[in-house]
Amino acid sequence: MMNEFDIIKKFFQQQSIHRKDVILGSGDDCALLKSPPDQLLAVSMDTLISGVHFPKDLSAYEIGYKSLAVNLSDLAAMGAIPAWFTCGLSLPDFDEDWCKEFSRGLFDLANQYHIELIGGDLTRSKILSITIQAHGFVPKELALRRDGAKIGDKIYISGKLGHAILKNYYHRPEPRINLGLALRGKAHSCIDISDGLIADLSHILESSKLGASIYMDKIPVVHQDALISGDDYELCFTARAELNLESDPKLSEYNISCIGQMESQKGLRIYQPDGALWIPEKSGYQHF
Amino acid sequence: MMNEFDIIKKFFQQQSIHRKDVILGSGDDCALLKSPPDQLLAVSMDTLISGVHFPKDLSAYEIGYKSLAVNLSDLAAMGAIPAWFTCGLSLPDFDEDWCKEFSRGLFDLANQYHIELIGGDLTRSKILSITIQAHGFVPKELALRRDGAKIGDKIYISGKLGHAILKNYYHRPEPRINLGLALRGKAHSCIDISDGLIADLSHILESSKLGASIYMDKIPVVHQDALISGDDYELCFTARAELNLESDPKLSEYNISCIGQMESQKGLRIYQPDGALWIPEKSGYQHF
Repeated sequence: MMNEFDIIKKFFQQQSIHRKDVILGSGDDCALLKSPPDQLLAVSMDTLISGVHFPKDLSAYEIGYKSLAVNLSDLAAMGAIPAWFTCGLSLPDFDEDWCKEFSRGLFDLANQYHIELIGGDLTRSKILSITIQAHGFVPKELALRRDGAKIGDKIYISGKLGHAILKNYYHRPEPRINLGLALRGKAHSCIDISDGLIADLSHILESSKLGASIYMDKIPVVHQDALISGDDYELCFTARAELNLESDPKLSEYNISCIGQMESQKGLRIYQPDGALWIPEKSGYQHF
Repeated sequence: MMNEFDIIKKFFQQQSIHRKDVILGSGDDCALLKSPPDQLLAVSMDTLISGVHFPKDLSAYEIGYKSLAVNLSDLAAMGAIPAWFTCGLSLPDFDEDWCKEFSRGLFDLANQYHIELIGGDLTRSKILSITIQAHGFVPKELALRRDGAKIGDKIYISGKLGHAILKNYYHRPEPRINLGLALRGKAHSCIDISDGLIADLSHILESSKLGASIYMDKIPVVHQDALISGDDYELCFTARAELNLESDPKLSEYNISCIGQMESQKGLRIYQPDGALWIPEKSGYQHF
């Protein structure tokens, strides 16, 4: 029978990439890390719980992949470049195959973005849950905050919304790290679409103390509930209208669409194709 | 009915201290932080689960306090000075009184050590669990790692072991932050006693690739099981014998005791008062 230290050694200390700025990784009281002096440290923490954030029968590989992906999506939305992550894993039982597959999903994504696992905690609980904290870097002036939108900014989203409900997209969201980096110095504000477009765009409006109009026929969706369904992990961002980001060749690979504009009048107005206002019954996923 | 954003605003964004190095706290995709250029970032993550790490009937105040304390103890064991923390909280129900008391316990300790809550995640789960990550700073040359012990080092512990089983100590462990700072430049290695002296000292032996002898009559204990019981959160450290840390006036307030010495022969030898070796049946708490 393996104990917790054996499990950690066998499955969580075997990542193939090693960063030079990790002075001491897992295996001590703390990890020791070297931050670049000219940039800010960007950190984001997300908890995923079996039966709440993913179906109970989801494969260990997909759980590992998604747990890190949702955090990388937050770094993307800040325009940060990934560096390190920690993982708190609570398991009902120790199942060697499960741990092997979970860590494979985790590291497949981690290696792709050169982000190193530097520590965490392994505990026993009746319910499977994973808390990951991702760390990245961004120069202060280039951070894509929620509170920077300006009146007249065009509002954009990347990709199509509503894919999450289709199985594949739900389980392996692609974090838009490269788009976040491409938006540095261009976008005034940015957020990732994790709870649904309406809920998440509303955070930009509140933080920026402005309102907006968006147009349903300009929003690429794969089904009707796309505006209030979560887990898409595309980016929603605003930029000066004159930049015409929808025609920017450096952004063409991300399939961005202009869906509306920022306005001084508070609140979010959603226009149907016939020009009538659409009032959603709910705006997005809420835990309480 | 409050939703998750209301809960966060009301109970978790009202900390009275604000650090200058927190450029952006909770409420965006990421927190943005300024690290000191001449020091390393030390990070530690711990998960506490109701019914595993604390009794189910423990008060919300004590749960909040202890959740942060165990992480501060890891910073102490690294000789790091606390700066920021994140908190992932999974709650079975939303109970306004519970959240109020939990955050009061959390912030009472946080304010004492000037450590600021910079973000986290609030989710719903059948089982109450808390994952905290603490961040601190330490100059590279002064970090108290586990792998620095040398042959002939004296082995020390602070305080008395076994208090944890007595209710009060179990629930409000005092993190030895100031002792950790006082040991900078003096101790060769250090660990906090979270799983029991034998288990934790064994980590120093393994990391430093050495062995040790310790003497039961030199170990201050409050009861017989103290060597294998966890949750004490005192520090165990080693230092050059000639430093005689037990007589160092700068350390007198921490009640440190020399309990043995590091040796080249691998393994941990525990001597009883009559000189016979003592072989423990188990070495400390294990989750799996």
